[in-house]
Amino acid sequence: MNYGEVIKNIHKNLSPYWEKGKVANYIPALAEVNPQQYGIAIEMLDGSSYRVGDAETRFSIQSISKVFTLAMVTSHMGDSIWKHVGREPSGTPFNSLVQLEYEQGIPRNPFINAGALVITDRLMSLYDKPEEAILNFVRKLCGNDDIVYDEHIAQSERAHAERNMALAYFMKSFGNIENDVEKVVDVYCHQCAISMSCVDLSRAFLFLANHGLNPFNNEQILTVSQAKRLGALMLTCGFYDESGDFAFRAGLPGKSGVGGGIAAYIPGNLAITVWSPGLNEHGNSWIGMETLERFTTDISNSIF
Amino acid sequence: MNYGEVIKNIHKNLSPYWEKGKVANYIPALAEVNPQQYGIAIEMLDGSSYRVGDAETRFSIQSISKVFTLAMVTSHMGDSIWKHVGREPSGTPFNSLVQLEYEQGIPRNPFINAGALVITDRLMSLYDKPEEAILNFVRKLCGNDDIVYDEHIAQSERAHAERNMALAYFMKSFGNIENDVEKVVDVYCHQCAISMSCVDLSRAFLFLANHGLNPFNNEQILTVSQAKRLGALMLTCGFYDESGDFAFRAGLPGKSGVGGGIAAYIPGNLAITVWSPGLNEHGNSWIGMETLERFTTDISNSIF
Amino acid sequence: MNYGEVIKNIHKNLSPYWEKGKVANYIPALAEVNPQQYGIAIEMLDGSSYRVGDAETRFSIQSISKVFTLAMVTSHMGDSIWKHVGREPSGTPFNSLVQLEYEQGIPRNPFINAGALVITDRLMSLYDKPEEAILNFVRKLCGNDDIVYDEHIAQSERAHAERNMALAYFMKSFGNIENDVEKVVDVYCHQCAISMSCVDLSRAFLFLANHGLNPFNNEQILTVSQAKRLGALMLTCGFYDESGDFAFRAGLPGKSGVGGGIAAYIPGNLAITVWSPGLNEHGNSWIGMETLERFTTDISNSIF
Amino acid sequence: MNYGEVIKNIHKNLSPYWEKGKVANYIPALAEVNPQQYGIAIEMLDGSSYRVGDAETRFSIQSISKVFTLAMVTSHMGDSIWKHVGREPSGTPFNSLVQLEYEQGIPRNPFINAGALVITDRLMSLYDKPEEAILNFVRKLCGNDDIVYDEHIAQSERAHAERNMALAYFMKSFGNIENDVEKVVDVYCHQCAISMSCVDLSRAFLFLANHGLNPFNNEQILTVSQAKRLGALMLTCGFYDESGDFAFRAGLPGKSGVGGGIAAYIPGNLAITVWSPGLNEHGNSWIGMETLERFTTDISNSIF
Repeated sequence: MNYGEVIKNIHKNLSPYWEKGKVANYIPALAEVNPQQYGIAIEMLDGSSYRVGDAETRFSIQSISKVFTLAMVTSHMGDSIWKHVGREPSGTPFNSLVQLEYEQGIPRNPFINAGALVITDRLMSLYDKPEEAILNFVRKLCGNDDIVYDEHIAQSERAHAERNMALAYFMKSFGNIENDVEKVVDVYCHQCAISMSCVDLSRAFLFLANHGLNPFNNEQILTVSQAKRLGALMLTCGFYDESGDFAFRAGLPGKSGVGGGIAAYIPGNLAITVWSPGLNEHGNSWIGMETLERFTTDISNSIF
Repeated sequence: MNYGEVIKNIHKNLSPYWEKGKVANYIPALAEVNPQQYGIAIEMLDGSSYRVGDAETRFSIQSISKVFTLAMVTSHMGDSIWKHVGREPSGTPFNSLVQLEYEQGIPRNPFINAGALVITDRLMSLYDKPEEAILNFVRKLCGNDDIVYDEHIAQSERAHAERNMALAYFMKSFGNIENDVEKVVDVYCHQCAISMSCVDLSRAFLFLANHGLNPFNNEQILTVSQAKRLGALMLTCGFYDESGDFAFRAGLPGKSGVGGGIAAYIPGNLAITVWSPGLNEHGNSWIGMETLERFTTDISNSIF
Repeated sequence: MNYGEVIKNIHKNLSPYWEKGKVANYIPALAEVNPQQYGIAIEMLDGSSYRVGDAETRFSIQSISKVFTLAMVTSHMGDSIWKHVGREPSGTPFNSLVQLEYEQGIPRNPFINAGALVITDRLMSLYDKPEEAILNFVRKLCGNDDIVYDEHIAQSERAHAERNMALAYFMKSFGNIENDVEKVVDVYCHQCAISMSCVDLSRAFLFLANHGLNPFNNEQILTVSQAKRLGALMLTCGFYDESGDFAFRAGLPGKSGVGGGIAAYIPGNLAITVWSPGLNEHGNSWIGMETLERFTTDISNSIF
Repeated sequence: MNYGEVIKNIHKNLSPYWEKGKVANYIPALAEVNPQQYGIAIEMLDGSSYRVGDAETRFSIQSISKVFTLAMVTSHMGDSIWKHVGREPSGTPFNSLVQLEYEQGIPRNPFINAGALVITDRLMSLYDKPEEAILNFVRKLCGNDDIVYDEHIAQSERAHAERNMALAYFMKSFGNIENDVEKVVDVYCHQCAISMSCVDLSRAFLFLANHGLNPFNNEQILTVSQAKRLGALMLTCGFYDESGDFAFRAGLPGKSGVGGGIAAYIPGNLAITVWSPGLNEHGNSWIGMETLERFTTDISNSIF
């Protein structure tokens, strides 16, 4: 199978459709991004790699960061984290408060905003300098020490964080946030504002395809069982209320962000990241979703 | 890997825990079942098979039948079925009407009761004798012509079908049921009352592990892409509001029924069915869930 | 205060606005009604009466019938009925199932459809011939033996009763319907199809203005306390999810129906009925709501 | 009718039941109150007044303050306030966020917390010193210049305001809060912490019984129509999710607070306040609810 050829063809065929999606505008800084960008990067466990288009351009990883913070907290706390956050699909939009009220402040899973805030809160209890710790973790995963926060985006995010403030205060009223709400939201806005390229993200996801073991430095980030579980969570909850549809179409564990990125992987094989800023109505990259569906169809390989 | 040894050990270790679950009592006929039963059967694509305990005892497959009717309808209608039923996890119990009201009579997925009723309704529009057609389909899949409806259970189910009647009338009020409600619920109660053993079910699920191709007679039941999609649906929606948890723990596509059966598979490899009547609070076999989690842990193989 | 003059003026001023509303079309028979009709009738406890426009034309009273069946059941069962139905505003549309699921089959109040079905069900347990009993009760209240069911409407209603069937089966699944669902819905469709004029309805409501005592024959239909409670229920729940707004604007206890009628009263003083078939988006007569707001403003008299 | 005798009897009969309720404990400062207190005060439009028990002891008026702030905002803004807050019963608990999400940040009515926060927010836009303005308004209404904030309670309230912070941030995310969230919640916590006695409150509510005209100084606080509307709102929404029940039992417009106070009135006649700190499961004074039901029964006079 010539993966390079496969993604080159997909890239060519889908490039004309960039106007199908709509760039995120819920914060001003994200709305400034040029929509006509589209990159794909594959990193394989055998060491080979493929890229096409804007694969080395950095973008705001947004919710993809939730995978990294969850991996950090899981590696420290193990199963005890699951008292504070569930692992079921939510059936509601990413920033919904409804389920939270019915279920007494315990978010459905760590990939909706409420759940990610709980994870960030625990991270703050674990690390003295949580923002530094997150950057270090990501830098080591992808082997790129230049990974930084985009402060312009972080500040814009923070200035429009009313909904996340509401979620955090709501959970605090149920006793499910330990740290100061303003600071939790601040760290959260920073993690969303990490800038990475498709290549960076594919490298950073490769330890998941490798069952928890970082293939670049042989560090065991997660146990085999923890890696299995993180994959299952991505498959069932990684795409908000479109998670079922992504599993249905692409058949891969993955995580999307409103910056237009989607990172996914085939266990034992490869990690792949697509980026194109235009989003569909569920907040996932229009071209990204399409790309990954075609990819698993063309290579006749998914997890199913 | 000695699969026979693996399931023998699990069976021995979990047998003492049969009283952890509670036999379904929502219909009288199901409540009569002896809870101290526990069987496991594996069928492999290489032709080998393994069984332990009550693997050949027949039980009521209940919701596992939803996989068969969905496969039948999909093979006829293809993607057009997805106008009438969604493919997202529901986040609510299997017989909930709440989501149905907010989403105008379109059930979230074909594995909650509302969605399965829509599938049965379409099946009735496709076949003159839907009850015969279902039996024939299942018989061919597992190569056992003795598969029949348990009429005692079907009648008991029908006599206590108020909630399913409510769901069907509710969807009819939105125009999403084509046939007579009484008849739809009647066929539905029958499909739930099919009697099969663990061995029968593992054989019947093997075409899914084989990407849509029946390994016994080389009939292409579903296309590769349709099989991928059915697997994804099982993983994200196969266990009601515990779907995320099963994916998290076992990491396999599968489907459970309140009769205490769970059928699952590893793509390209094998199908496995567990049966033990005691259910956990989500309506899934307590021993069954535990068995499959240990199985994928012991063989270090899941889809993730 | 010249009540006759007041309603004549209102009638003149509002007549041009008949096209503001939309005739109910959820059943074909109701959709046939000529929308350009508008009547008002006042009956006073001092014996005087006033009428203007189509005050003697009969129309389908629809949900206004819920007041009559509730009065019948209350006079027999007293407070024991409140174990089966609540007395709080629902905050949801008249035919919603959502609240019913969260509250285990106990409808919020007797004026939403689910609650009215429970009342009709209990009526069927109380009377051998419930349909006759209802007619007799209404005939005596308004002193008009010609009150009958409009069978054309009753049949049309019955033929499109899927939502009500769903509600009734749903409650039966919680054990809150005693009789056969088909029969309950049948009686319910009949009570909605009673034909009465504004004059009939104002006469039939006068016992409520008279604290439970029928002013025409001195029969004590309800105790003073029961009449107070029925009034409170109408005020808080009589207009579906527009109940607060009607209380806010008109300040009177009353009950509306999708046939376009609204019957209301001022305790110790009078009953007033308005009818005009065009409905607002909440299912209440557009002209009717407006008429009653102007009426209480013009006479400077409400219950507040 | 000897009102003094009536309330003396009720007070004697209900005093033994003080342990039926439970003192509010959601903030520490409220939990310190001695539960064995019980006062009733009636002020009549004819100038007479009656009191029994702890009628002159001050307590925290809590949500009763929502009537005062709504009256202030209504008198300035008239109907334009109803673009920002609804006037329908909510059908959900006083601090629920669920409805707010479904209805895009517009609270159901001004008497649930979310609605009251919107009113306080608008008040802050209308007055330079909103906290002073509220005190002055209340002082003038009841003719008592000693009315003050209980700073101990206000601070305790502020220190446990996570849920209200969540509500305010949530509405701000929909654009329905104009001022700084921290400041809005601060003013809100103060208004809840006003200390008044039953006598003070009955005097302060007398302008409502007098159709908007302050009977002590002849100032027209609200128009007749505005007073009617405020009364209707209290009746339909004044007791959270027990509003229907209070209307049903007492048949009066009124407003309760978790400090154990209930103020109510009979239009054209009198205002009555009861206070006893023990609350029922809906957050309304157990003895207070019972007192007002018996009162309207004993004097055979309600608004119905």
